[in-house]
Amino acid sequence: MSDLTEPTTPEGGLLLEILARHAPRVAAAAEEHDREGTFPVGVVKELAADGVLGATVPAELGGLGVSSVHDVCLAVMRLAEVDASLALSLHMQLCRGLTMSYELEHSTDAGRALAERILRLMASGETLISGALKDAGPPTELVPASEGWLLSGRKILVSMAPVASHFVVSARTRPGSGTPRAASVFLPARTEGLTVAEDWDGLGMRASASTEIRFDRCRIPDTDVFLRGPVGGRDDAALAGQTASSIGLLGVYAGIAQSARDIAVAGVSGRGGTPAAAVRTLTAEIDVKLYSLRTALGVALINTDRYAHRDFDDPGERGRRMMVPFQQAKLVVNRCAAAIVEDCMTLTGGASFVSGHPLARRYRDVRAGWFMQPFTYADAVDRLSAWALGLDE
Amino acid sequence: MSDLTEPTTPEGGLLLEILARHAPRVAAAAEEHDREGTFPVGVVKELAADGVLGATVPAELGGLGVSSVHDVCLAVMRLAEVDASLALSLHMQLCRGLTMSYELEHSTDAGRALAERILRLMASGETLISGALKDAGPPTELVPASEGWLLSGRKILVSMAPVASHFVVSARTRPGSGTPRAASVFLPARTEGLTVAEDWDGLGMRASASTEIRFDRCRIPDTDVFLRGPVGGRDDAALAGQTASSIGLLGVYAGIAQSARDIAVAGVSGRGGTPAAAVRTLTAEIDVKLYSLRTALGVALINTDRYAHRDFDDPGERGRRMMVPFQQAKLVVNRCAAAIVEDCMTLTGGASFVSGHPLARRYRDVRAGWFMQPFTYADAVDRLSAWALGLDE
Amino acid sequence: MSDLTEPTTPEGGLLLEILARHAPRVAAAAEEHDREGTFPVGVVKELAADGVLGATVPAELGGLGVSSVHDVCLAVMRLAEVDASLALSLHMQLCRGLTMSYELEHSTDAGRALAERILRLMASGETLISGALKDAGPPTELVPASEGWLLSGRKILVSMAPVASHFVVSARTRPGSGTPRAASVFLPARTEGLTVAEDWDGLGMRASASTEIRFDRCRIPDTDVFLRGPVGGRDDAALAGQTASSIGLLGVYAGIAQSARDIAVAGVSGRGGTPAAAVRTLTAEIDVKLYSLRTALGVALINTDRYAHRDFDDPGERGRRMMVPFQQAKLVVNRCAAAIVEDCMTLTGGASFVSGHPLARRYRDVRAGWFMQPFTYADAVDRLSAWALGLDE
Amino acid sequence: MSDLTEPTTPEGGLLLEILARHAPRVAAAAEEHDREGTFPVGVVKELAADGVLGATVPAELGGLGVSSVHDVCLAVMRLAEVDASLALSLHMQLCRGLTMSYELEHSTDAGRALAERILRLMASGETLISGALKDAGPPTELVPASEGWLLSGRKILVSMAPVASHFVVSARTRPGSGTPRAASVFLPARTEGLTVAEDWDGLGMRASASTEIRFDRCRIPDTDVFLRGPVGGRDDAALAGQTASSIGLLGVYAGIAQSARDIAVAGVSGRGGTPAAAVRTLTAEIDVKLYSLRTALGVALINTDRYAHRDFDDPGERGRRMMVPFQQAKLVVNRCAAAIVEDCMTLTGGASFVSGHPLARRYRDVRAGWFMQPFTYADAVDRLSAWALGLDE
Repeated sequence: MSDLTEPTTPEGGLLLEILARHAPRVAAAAEEHDREGTFPVGVVKELAADGVLGATVPAELGGLGVSSVHDVCLAVMRLAEVDASLALSLHMQLCRGLTMSYELEHSTDAGRALAERILRLMASGETLISGALKDAGPPTELVPASEGWLLSGRKILVSMAPVASHFVVSARTRPGSGTPRAASVFLPARTEGLTVAEDWDGLGMRASASTEIRFDRCRIPDTDVFLRGPVGGRDDAALAGQTASSIGLLGVYAGIAQSARDIAVAGVSGRGGTPAAAVRTLTAEIDVKLYSLRTALGVALINTDRYAHRDFDDPGERGRRMMVPFQQAKLVVNRCAAAIVEDCMTLTGGASFVSGHPLARRYRDVRAGWFMQPFTYADAVDRLSAWALGLDE
Repeated sequence: MSDLTEPTTPEGGLLLEILARHAPRVAAAAEEHDREGTFPVGVVKELAADGVLGATVPAELGGLGVSSVHDVCLAVMRLAEVDASLALSLHMQLCRGLTMSYELEHSTDAGRALAERILRLMASGETLISGALKDAGPPTELVPASEGWLLSGRKILVSMAPVASHFVVSARTRPGSGTPRAASVFLPARTEGLTVAEDWDGLGMRASASTEIRFDRCRIPDTDVFLRGPVGGRDDAALAGQTASSIGLLGVYAGIAQSARDIAVAGVSGRGGTPAAAVRTLTAEIDVKLYSLRTALGVALINTDRYAHRDFDDPGERGRRMMVPFQQAKLVVNRCAAAIVEDCMTLTGGASFVSGHPLARRYRDVRAGWFMQPFTYADAVDRLSAWALGLDE
Repeated sequence: MSDLTEPTTPEGGLLLEILARHAPRVAAAAEEHDREGTFPVGVVKELAADGVLGATVPAELGGLGVSSVHDVCLAVMRLAEVDASLALSLHMQLCRGLTMSYELEHSTDAGRALAERILRLMASGETLISGALKDAGPPTELVPASEGWLLSGRKILVSMAPVASHFVVSARTRPGSGTPRAASVFLPARTEGLTVAEDWDGLGMRASASTEIRFDRCRIPDTDVFLRGPVGGRDDAALAGQTASSIGLLGVYAGIAQSARDIAVAGVSGRGGTPAAAVRTLTAEIDVKLYSLRTALGVALINTDRYAHRDFDDPGERGRRMMVPFQQAKLVVNRCAAAIVEDCMTLTGGASFVSGHPLARRYRDVRAGWFMQPFTYADAVDRLSAWALGLDE
Repeated sequence: MSDLTEPTTPEGGLLLEILARHAPRVAAAAEEHDREGTFPVGVVKELAADGVLGATVPAELGGLGVSSVHDVCLAVMRLAEVDASLALSLHMQLCRGLTMSYELEHSTDAGRALAERILRLMASGETLISGALKDAGPPTELVPASEGWLLSGRKILVSMAPVASHFVVSARTRPGSGTPRAASVFLPARTEGLTVAEDWDGLGMRASASTEIRFDRCRIPDTDVFLRGPVGGRDDAALAGQTASSIGLLGVYAGIAQSARDIAVAGVSGRGGTPAAAVRTLTAEIDVKLYSLRTALGVALINTDRYAHRDFDDPGERGRRMMVPFQQAKLVVNRCAAAIVEDCMTLTGGASFVSGHPLARRYRDVRAGWFMQPFTYADAVDRLSAWALGLDE
């Protein structure tokens, strides 16, 4: 239906059922972890016991076999309705299953072996893998060592860093000669030389524990690296993978918006009496925005799943056909979600202006949407306008 | 895909192909008919020769067999990209096929006979049926006569009235005793007592010839009336039919928006050079609005088709599940379409501020969206908020 | 008060009183001239008889002595409440008085003589001066002749062109050697070689008769030219004059918005009964937009009058301090006015979707705001952002 | 100038100069007090030493003699540029001086005596008076006692409550017979029976310490009560006082917006290079919103000062003429300020999504605007639409 109300696969449906069972306990823990800025480890253990950490691992490797980006996003949305920080964090895990499954089919022999190893670890229920993308300064580098590599650098906004069992880190090689290549490095959290800061104090998404990690000459075996193409240059083919691995994050903001709406509408309904004119108008308009958000996102997700497994003669064209609706949906989602939360606070009144109020938390959380990879708003405008106008940049 | 780019049925696909062939000639005629406020009879004859007037008549009755509301809306969108007035007008014909097909399955014996007769006439290619809904004053009435009925009343905004071969007119019976019932009356344009004004001078939709018609004791045989339930009272079950027969109209505004965007982007691209910052931002934002419009509408159409043939224990619930997304999509469509046309004029500059400019025509046409049945904006807010808040009205 | 409700000078007050007396007759003529696309010559003769054509001529030269840009804008607003096309046209005349008064104080001897001549002609009540700014192709040029100059070129969007008695035309000199200079040329409409098209068919502003004029080697005496500085180069000092001569045009859109609001509110009030929730919300929000429009514009006008007669060591700084609020106000005015007209049509319903309806006329007229000199939206964004960010362009 | 850039009185100018000297120290303390949720007592002592606590006390009673609501609002704006919580809090003190000065002229003998006493205390520099308006439950009541009154009740959102030396509390009398009357009660913080909670944990405005206070049979002498008219009934005359005592609060949001803009623009400028298209567009549009905010508010303030000391035959008319622009300005201010802060975060990027970042603080603070007395958004729509449409409610 593309309106983000139903899963598109039976496996997705099963995952939603599991999450629905856990939702009340996740919700109950959310306020405290938001206040303290701590990751809800206990809650995640319970989810793990039901297979959630391996939800997107293929069944033959021991997972639940969810393979649809749409269904992952819907699961993220349902989680975010009760705890947006947790949803943001677990998206990394869920999405990792999808990307590793893709490696399993398309990578080199070495890549396939590593992907399978990671997937089996995820299916074990004891592996929580965080992704580290954003450099705090010069790019994180892989330097050839006598055996394998040495990884050095600094990454920020690494969700779940203090509790993750492993990391996947984007880096570039620094070869003696030739062109640097992009790489993804898999390493356990206990690796020597890896340190995790504990100073996350976000405006929102406080329970995501999105701290800084540092790598100081961490030793990495050859088997634990995905080597990719040369660094630099615009490669529209890469947009496909960026879309598949990031669009599910928009479920976070869909969940924030949906739950803010439900809280505010329940509050107004509970008051009884005849609602004021502006209350009726705001209520209808909130639902229009939520509808707009859900349809813009739902269609982009169906589009992602559709193209994910389809080959194109021109892989750049495939990348653009995935990225363009993603970016357009992202702007719709970010704007609608923010406006919905604000209107819900207006409907609810001054009681919502207290730090721990469910709407105040959502107000803080929702703003994160503008800072999600891969593009800033300015990047998105540059790309979308260049493609629309045929600019050669 | 729910983004209003592809038909969902082969029959819909065939209709789109036919329309694509005719599009250049429709486009060529549009400016003149807009200026003169005349219906493009010649163009319609050409479309009729290819079966367009019977496109939604079941194949076994001689039509093209298009049965999807989604595909009808997409056809209306494609027409509106070249001539919004014509699209608005032909929507009535296309939608008539759908509603008559529904009658064919669900009506009384008498209703089925009338529906079949109408469908066969439509398939002949020589029948253009206009619908007359909106009373200009007291309700149009059917009074029992010695044989059949006498129809009297006045209807406004009757598109294609001067050229239609037949009309379907909503009316109410005025029985000697008992409760008045709603009715739909089918009658030929040449019926005695029926007069058509020729004074349509709309702000936009000028080629739709949406004039006034009057009925002065027109004789109507019993066989030409669909009798329905008692007049008055809120009946949510009726929302299903209202959705199916009206949502396709939103394709008009989708087509206006899509073509305005294409005109403006082509203009900017054609200028060459480096576009100004605001031009790039506007271009990206126009495409975001168009994406939002297409997804909101596309999903509501899929929803309509999905529920159209599904039975519910509670027919009111079915009606609301169809009408709510329709009304939400309508607000998104109206706002996005209007904003797109305006931004496109800003991109294009003063050259677009001339009466016959393609963007000036779209600017005039697009405003009609707010006046489409069945609900005004105020009605929509009342209904949507009442349902959301559980108000009992 | 800066909210555009009261004149700031007694002379301005007198002008408003005169216009108030004529308003009903202007209003009565507006629809016909809009439909026909003709300038309301009769109405202007009546206004002329009361001194309106010389309103901004200093009293000592026979005018009414209005010298405030604010009050000119307010007069334009009042006119636009009944006829926006006429207001747009007469703004040229009223503003001419201000710029000529400025020349009278600051120009060369020759310039002062020409300015005085023009002002006395304006005060006579028989002189209607149109301004021709926008070239349709290569710049209009003044070529030195044996005596005086020869003017050749083509100008578009010249309001009142078919009925003007004189024109002031922006041009550039084409000297045998040296740098071309900017010039303003004054010439009677009956000058040999001057031809006026009669083909204006605007989307709106139809009674302004904004046609094309051509100059084919028109002979211009030396005494009838204001010679200015060299052509080209960005000169922020010039922004002061551009502000003073253009900001009053925003009164046109203020008047459109004010009268649209009054029409719609009177319509809703006249219906009686309890207004729907959305009607109340829209009504309040329309008034908020109108307030925003009036205050943004009112303050920019007071600012213009304040700086108009103040000297600065850095004339570029003076220019920017006048232009920045003007451009900011322009965006507020354009957006609020358009939104108000649209919301007023929504309040009023389908009856307003007829070509000659007062709101339909305003809907067509209001769009012109985006095409007013001196800056397009893209230009405005470039300038405002460059100044804010300290970009050196 | 009505654009909220300059004071309208010399006394206002002096106050601004004092505040400018203190601004760096206020700014330096703001982050910590925001984090801890504590009122900046030290900073206020320094301000007190320069007379700020008595700024609006007439000079003849020892104050600085600021008497303009406009200038108070501008002072509040300047404070809010560095610390919105403090600005919100001190607005109460500054505004108290204005309302007490009004009592001094218009009250009964007893009222005048009390007002003078309060004003002299304020001028002493050691008196910080908090206002308690909003009941948490049944209305706070004054019950007649053998001598004077007993005050009982509970008030929430009482800014500065933990540090105030005195309170002014709105209450109603509970007479043995007859109609209850409205009352304002002045009492020292050390009064027996008065308790102050210390649990303020707002989403924003955290340094305002807006806690709950309780009155349990506090003894109040007759001399410390302003008795007003009967409770209940709509009294448009009272709108005048409500406007004068509340509109200055909008300066808080003006200051938040102005400083957010300055922070973001400085950040973008500091990056160097060519700004992206969207960055330029956002920058220009932020400045348009700020202009709109400042002009809407500036004009409403001038209007307030103008009517404050003008008598009307119909005091209800006077009240409406003050309240209508105030409410319209409030909506413009709230919307523009929120949008500016959000756009500034988008310009600044993910670095601003940290709890203590200056923009993150402003994002939390700015939302308070919707909860300011005297009207909610729903109330404002009801009132504005009723007045516009002539509804009798």
